[in-house]
Amino acid sequence: MHKTLLALATALLLSSTVATGPVLAGESETRIGVEAHEVVPGLRDAALRSDLAYRVVESLTTEVGPRLAGSEADARAVAWAEAKFHELGFDKVWKEPVTFPKWERRSEHARVLGANAQPLTITALGGSPGGTVEGEVVRFADLAALEAAPAGSLAGKIAFVDYRMERARDGAGYGPGSRVRSRGPSAAIRAGAAGYVMRSAGTDSHRNPHTGITRFDEGLQPIPSAALSVPDADQLARLVARGTTRLQLALDCGWTGTATSYNVIGQINGSERPEEVVVIGGHLDSWDLGTGAVDDGAGVGITMAAGALIGQLPAPPARSIRVVAFANEEQGLYGGKAYAEAHKDEVGLHVIGAESDFGAGRIYGYSSSAPAYAEPADKAIAEALAPLGIVHMPGEGGPGPDIGPMAANGVAWARLAQDGTDYFDLHHTPDDTFDKIDPEALAQNVAAYAVFAYLAASNEVQHGFGSAPRDTPPAED
Amino acid sequence: MHKTLLALATALLLSSTVATGPVLAGESETRIGVEAHEVVPGLRDAALRSDLAYRVVESLTTEVGPRLAGSEADARAVAWAEAKFHELGFDKVWKEPVTFPKWERRSEHARVLGANAQPLTITALGGSPGGTVEGEVVRFADLAALEAAPAGSLAGKIAFVDYRMERARDGAGYGPGSRVRSRGPSAAIRAGAAGYVMRSAGTDSHRNPHTGITRFDEGLQPIPSAALSVPDADQLARLVARGTTRLQLALDCGWTGTATSYNVIGQINGSERPEEVVVIGGHLDSWDLGTGAVDDGAGVGITMAAGALIGQLPAPPARSIRVVAFANEEQGLYGGKAYAEAHKDEVGLHVIGAESDFGAGRIYGYSSSAPAYAEPADKAIAEALAPLGIVHMPGEGGPGPDIGPMAANGVAWARLAQDGTDYFDLHHTPDDTFDKIDPEALAQNVAAYAVFAYLAASNEVQHGFGSAPRDTPPAED
Repeated sequence: MHKTLLALATALLLSSTVATGPVLAGESETRIGVEAHEVVPGLRDAALRSDLAYRVVESLTTEVGPRLAGSEADARAVAWAEAKFHELGFDKVWKEPVTFPKWERRSEHARVLGANAQPLTITALGGSPGGTVEGEVVRFADLAALEAAPAGSLAGKIAFVDYRMERARDGAGYGPGSRVRSRGPSAAIRAGAAGYVMRSAGTDSHRNPHTGITRFDEGLQPIPSAALSVPDADQLARLVARGTTRLQLALDCGWTGTATSYNVIGQINGSERPEEVVVIGGHLDSWDLGTGAVDDGAGVGITMAAGALIGQLPAPPARSIRVVAFANEEQGLYGGKAYAEAHKDEVGLHVIGAESDFGAGRIYGYSSSAPAYAEPADKAIAEALAPLGIVHMPGEGGPGPDIGPMAANGVAWARLAQDGTDYFDLHHTPDDTFDKIDPEALAQNVAAYAVFAYLAASNEVQHGFGSAPRDTPPAED
Repeated sequence: MHKTLLALATALLLSSTVATGPVLAGESETRIGVEAHEVVPGLRDAALRSDLAYRVVESLTTEVGPRLAGSEADARAVAWAEAKFHELGFDKVWKEPVTFPKWERRSEHARVLGANAQPLTITALGGSPGGTVEGEVVRFADLAALEAAPAGSLAGKIAFVDYRMERARDGAGYGPGSRVRSRGPSAAIRAGAAGYVMRSAGTDSHRNPHTGITRFDEGLQPIPSAALSVPDADQLARLVARGTTRLQLALDCGWTGTATSYNVIGQINGSERPEEVVVIGGHLDSWDLGTGAVDDGAGVGITMAAGALIGQLPAPPARSIRVVAFANEEQGLYGGKAYAEAHKDEVGLHVIGAESDFGAGRIYGYSSSAPAYAEPADKAIAEALAPLGIVHMPGEGGPGPDIGPMAANGVAWARLAQDGTDYFDLHHTPDDTFDKIDPEALAQNVAAYAVFAYLAASNEVQHGFGSAPRDTPPAED
């Protein structure tokens, strides 16, 4: 196939507003050239042998440590990321501002009062106001039960949602688990509660509570809201089962104005179409309890290392590899949204995007939003990933969190699905630390991202995976 | 064999000061009667089927929670134990006062200062003074390295002993591990240090530091002394390896006068010689970080349940079963010492003693201090324990901590060795909570203690296992 001809044909197709799906076939299919495939085994093996990602994660989690969005440490993380991209030989390094409300945690305590007096281990939910409240605990087995509580029925009381999140490789349990965190406080307020506690959205059984952002619905007066560690939720449930249990919840935390942080970006320039980019990345911020090793130091390390290893090849791929360390993912995808907004006029230049933000477990599956005409390329990538133990799972999943906003604008996405069986043992807890990372699994991730990004950047048609502004629907829509 | 004759002969032997070892043979050997053996299978099976110990541990850890010696919760634990012994049908329940210095933990923080600023998770060592110190961290690989530091060499600095405790079924790693805690602070003071931190004496890798008592040698001015969680010790070691690292250690804790708590005792009276007792027990106090489930709610639950199940037999054994919930083991065996002192004139009435204070893992071995003439009884006990997967390990181990002081006075001891492979993942941490207990393993412990105590109380000679005041050495000495 002739690259220039294909590119011309594709450009014409994309500038058309006519539905063009059926027209694309045969020579119009997106393929990846033989030369690119020849690079893959060496790149994959180099990644598997490399401890670069492991050292990057070690550096970030050790030198910066916890890096709550908007904190002094977050600013150090931004400087760290710029320096690290330079150190790793990226061709171009820059940062783009991301502004958001700033939330701070200062102290947090809870204790059972009365005849069974004892402290409980809790952590404020991100976004919670501070305050000290005392009240009888009313336990609900799940969010629906709380939502069914009549208005005023919890006046002066503390609502306790005792829902136990389920463990799953793909993290399916996190949907219902995290809804208890995002919707529970507002439901408690509607029923009149003075405070809100929940069993952590987590799958471990350690005294490490899981924080995470919550939202209060418009018009409601926020109440102190916290998560109990799993053993503490067990304990509170046992106490409530024995009789009336009063709890004191004392949080010192809250919103303190506006902060500006940065998406930090490193690019390996493409050899033929450098303005066209494959975006990979992770998020640079973390919750403050741990050092953000699996969430998401790992994603930053994996994608920085994948980019760096591609940069060390004898020749770069045709298009650029852009690695983004996103700002403030944790509190509402601020970095992903800012990136999408800043680059909304460049959707067509973004070949495809993938974020690593599900820990440091091995990747077991590959899927993408590639339309039918890109199947040859998509399959070729899947085949190149297969030796890493990765299965092609077309049609499954969706874009990573910070890719979501650009995907909504029309950028194609890929998913390199990590084994998250143990992810929610650590996620958003003090226990999210460097020692939890398996260097071999991390290297497998790097190999997968490097192979994926290299091949995607080597496809032989412009916009080969369907990226197109949403007002010009992708060919398959 | 004729019981009265044997008893007379034994009494004569014990009143003699002549070495009598070789004289004891044949009819003078301690044996256990056939009738007692016939009781064993039913008792063992009832214990294996029973969830009594599990419910007792649940009750203590839930209703009382953490129970630091001398605290308000410790007093509640004493009341709980008295009530529980009554509820379980013990014939006689009483308490004996135990007085000790009282130590309190109020707050504790540590943070790395400067370019890598971040909080570290620590806990004050029991006995540490309060105070806030800042200084450069000097790392030592082990206690010997710190002890070799010249006087004055750590002036204004914070000593960090980074020794990693080893995992072992029998807890062998705890000797060197706990010496870092007991001796490290004094060694640091001798070298001039302003503060002391250590890698927790633990085998886990969670953000849960291990506390435990320390001592300051006479004449030294105590310094703030704390343990880092294992991941935080990893982190501090990495930071120190990168360059000069300054730490702020802020502890609010210390000694606050004297407290009186109680050994709480429940007894199942023997049918023939009720004044002669087999002592089993655990300790009632716990450290304050967790709820003291494996240390030592389990020991209290196991031995209370074993006693209660013996009490539910159609007929009690010849001698009494005395279950002791010892006060303040954690800060220096105060309960065990008080018991030994209070009963020092009754050594000959204490047939044998065994404490359960090594978690809630299965028992794998049995041994005792039984002299040669008691081997038939000792072997009979071991044979009765064998169906529980317990191996006879004569000559191994020693008395449990609170049995130690009475053993020093001449009371015979037994050891029912628990599998402690995972014990130091939890020991003295916030993570020592009820959910960590396996009910089946706990029931196996109860079965072992019940069988052991019942048979030991059924032996056919007085003082059959060699108990005798130390000024009248036991026959085998």
